[in-house]
Amino acid sequence: MTIAFPVPDPAILARRDAIIAGLRPLVAAEALVTSEDERRAFETDGLTAYRQMPLAVVLPSTTEEVAAVMRYCHQQGVRVVPRGAGTSLAGGAIAQEDAVILGVAKMNRVLAVDFADRTARVQAGITNLAISAAVAHEGFFYAPDPSSQLACTIAGNIAMNSGGAHCLKYGVTTNNLMGVTLVMVDGTVVEIGGDHLDSAGYDLLGLICGSEGQLGIVTEASVRILRAAEGARPALMGFGSVEAAGACTAAIIGAGIIPVAIEYMDREAITICEAFAHAGYPLDAEAMLIIEVEGSDQECDAMLARICEIAAPFAPTSLKVSQSEAESAAIWKGRKSAFGATGRISDYICMDGTIPTGRLAHVLERIGEITRSYGLRCANVFHAGDGNLHPLILFDINTPGEMEKAEAAGEDMLRLCVEVGGCLTGEHGVGIEKRDLMTVQYNQADLHQQMRVRAVFDPAWLMNPAKVFPLEGRIAA
Amino acid sequence: MTIAFPVPDPAILARRDAIIAGLRPLVAAEALVTSEDERRAFETDGLTAYRQMPLAVVLPSTTEEVAAVMRYCHQQGVRVVPRGAGTSLAGGAIAQEDAVILGVAKMNRVLAVDFADRTARVQAGITNLAISAAVAHEGFFYAPDPSSQLACTIAGNIAMNSGGAHCLKYGVTTNNLMGVTLVMVDGTVVEIGGDHLDSAGYDLLGLICGSEGQLGIVTEASVRILRAAEGARPALMGFGSVEAAGACTAAIIGAGIIPVAIEYMDREAITICEAFAHAGYPLDAEAMLIIEVEGSDQECDAMLARICEIAAPFAPTSLKVSQSEAESAAIWKGRKSAFGATGRISDYICMDGTIPTGRLAHVLERIGEITRSYGLRCANVFHAGDGNLHPLILFDINTPGEMEKAEAAGEDMLRLCVEVGGCLTGEHGVGIEKRDLMTVQYNQADLHQQMRVRAVFDPAWLMNPAKVFPLEGRIAA
Repeated sequence: MTIAFPVPDPAILARRDAIIAGLRPLVAAEALVTSEDERRAFETDGLTAYRQMPLAVVLPSTTEEVAAVMRYCHQQGVRVVPRGAGTSLAGGAIAQEDAVILGVAKMNRVLAVDFADRTARVQAGITNLAISAAVAHEGFFYAPDPSSQLACTIAGNIAMNSGGAHCLKYGVTTNNLMGVTLVMVDGTVVEIGGDHLDSAGYDLLGLICGSEGQLGIVTEASVRILRAAEGARPALMGFGSVEAAGACTAAIIGAGIIPVAIEYMDREAITICEAFAHAGYPLDAEAMLIIEVEGSDQECDAMLARICEIAAPFAPTSLKVSQSEAESAAIWKGRKSAFGATGRISDYICMDGTIPTGRLAHVLERIGEITRSYGLRCANVFHAGDGNLHPLILFDINTPGEMEKAEAAGEDMLRLCVEVGGCLTGEHGVGIEKRDLMTVQYNQADLHQQMRVRAVFDPAWLMNPAKVFPLEGRIAA
Repeated sequence: MTIAFPVPDPAILARRDAIIAGLRPLVAAEALVTSEDERRAFETDGLTAYRQMPLAVVLPSTTEEVAAVMRYCHQQGVRVVPRGAGTSLAGGAIAQEDAVILGVAKMNRVLAVDFADRTARVQAGITNLAISAAVAHEGFFYAPDPSSQLACTIAGNIAMNSGGAHCLKYGVTTNNLMGVTLVMVDGTVVEIGGDHLDSAGYDLLGLICGSEGQLGIVTEASVRILRAAEGARPALMGFGSVEAAGACTAAIIGAGIIPVAIEYMDREAITICEAFAHAGYPLDAEAMLIIEVEGSDQECDAMLARICEIAAPFAPTSLKVSQSEAESAAIWKGRKSAFGATGRISDYICMDGTIPTGRLAHVLERIGEITRSYGLRCANVFHAGDGNLHPLILFDINTPGEMEKAEAAGEDMLRLCVEVGGCLTGEHGVGIEKRDLMTVQYNQADLHQQMRVRAVFDPAWLMNPAKVFPLEGRIAA
């Protein structure tokens, strides 16, 4: 293990029984999880290489209960780690030994839908896909679609500013969030934003979105809902080299065309996902793009024709346009199950860097070189249109030293992203995973400024404190 | 005059000559404006009812010069009011007597355009329209389009998170901004965001956008550029009542249709704008919508047909679809010149509130009642699709007491916006105009939280300090 957990506060550990006794009257009996067996379910998240049992877990059912828990923990100086469904790939929901996990998954109701205002008000523990399900009868949907959307909560989406395959056209969480109910560290409940455009004063809503559970606990959210297009059609385009697929993506975007999605898979990812989904992916290609267009049949035809024109100079080796709903579903099943399908054949860590789209070809070439230099394998499957990379670095956890090699390769890849003018993360957040890499992207003045903003909300660093910032060099207000 | 300027610091006023002498070596000779005649050009902005001569004006040409000026003013404890083109309708660019105006209008170059990444890097003093002009040869444009776009700067757009008629489809400034170079209050230069999606850590870019020049001076910006649609076609739809036009807007949006723009004018605004632009507006209608759709001819036809179906129950009294580029230009000239055309016939103040779209009919009815109760006239012309209202309250500045009545009516209208679940501002910002109304939207805890965030960037309140927050009850870090 190369990422360190903070040293727990012995005074808190010593008071564990008293803290649990203090929490007991604040929530229903079954909502307080203290036994070792039951806590085990909360010891890790999507970054399964790291595990840490929390002091206790509370699962409140209302904003008032969340406020009561926060008020109590604040008084007692107890750290709190918020948790949605625990699907974070960056360790954002992993606790520390002296912290209480506050899970919002029981708060999973739709509170109101307003089609004229195109908003839905939901409790924060609702899953991403359940929002779309609740408005589908009128032809609407909620746009950001992380691959984990069946499980992940809107609370987690807001914490990480999550994206997804269709965010190329529709934007990420911050572009689809209208307002939140936020419980502050001391239990104060505030409303930020609402069912209207803009807000007076500073954009605190934008600041909360992507703040990784460090500025407060979101218990309700108003999100933008959109009308689904008349139809959608994904096409699979194979290429003879990774560079050609990368350059083709840049050319499509550079021509000003915004399909709903441009997803990229290299040969390794194609093989893995095709074996799982049987979607007709081109097994002979070095790289493949899934390009989805939407609209009427005529619109889809016209846009695909234009895309094929632009792609021609990059010599695609195959083109297959979906001919049915079932075929489209299989194509997306392969893509959305990529991480799970990879997990069936190997241990892996999933990187999440973002680069300017124009640098795709260069960066893909360099990622290949980095992988080879460590003697590892890497499957690339990612949101090419957004320049949001997801190298899945494969390794064998039972071979001593191999995980460390994979982590070192991942670090090199993220440094590369920053070097070409990109960024450490696109949608997974910093979590514990990239905490120590923040100094690659930011100098000390930058980090201090972010920490001073943090301190306005949580001066004592009680909220999810082991994340985002390196453990060394922290400052308070 | 009902809005008070802060009492100037006599120690600063007494040191005026020394401060000017200190500024002189920092910028070119012609970039330091000190004479009374020349300072006069900077004594007001788009909120012309209020005037205040600044201590001096500096117009730097580079980020380094801006940094030098900020460093000096910070050392000397001199307040600084940033200024773009001075088109603010909320008094955002009006100085105070003891402040130096720092204007960025000389920094007006395009630095780089990258079509593959869909970004343009510009100096912050460039006008909004000049960005579109610089990328038009490849069929691209910059989307947010304030009516003042010929004059207003991207610096001002960022400060106020400006919108415009076409933001219904494309989003406002914050949705089209990728990164900025920011000079902090002490002269430190930082980069925030960049030519890539998302950023690691907190969303400081979102926080800067809309912060009204209080968190630093933006000297460069990376903005998203978009491919222009194949074609666009505005249609004019007349209605027999304001409520019908409002309800029709809600029905279109509620059906999940997002035209590029849905603009609203009532009879008063139609009359004023038609006299100016001769665009063929329906003079017999009580209210009119300008609905613009875009795409191919067939797409425009199909979307307009669907919109007409939805509108039918609201009994439109007329429908006129633009048949030529010239006709479309005239239709938009009338809308975009609405404020100027109103200024030809009367003094006015322009309100800027935002409401949930579903409440449009109710709020328009109430605005009529408020106007009548003060014995005034009001022209309503605004971004209906976004729920962003712009009542233009007409008055005669030479009739004693009438401006105060107009301001009181405006205040009632903004209180109404908040009451129905909306917000004090959509795109003009708070400025000095709505400073004292912030307590209607926010309680003291809310305001203190915003001020604590402000204090992270500017603990001594040197940056544009007379704006956004009520002068009473301020707190520092």
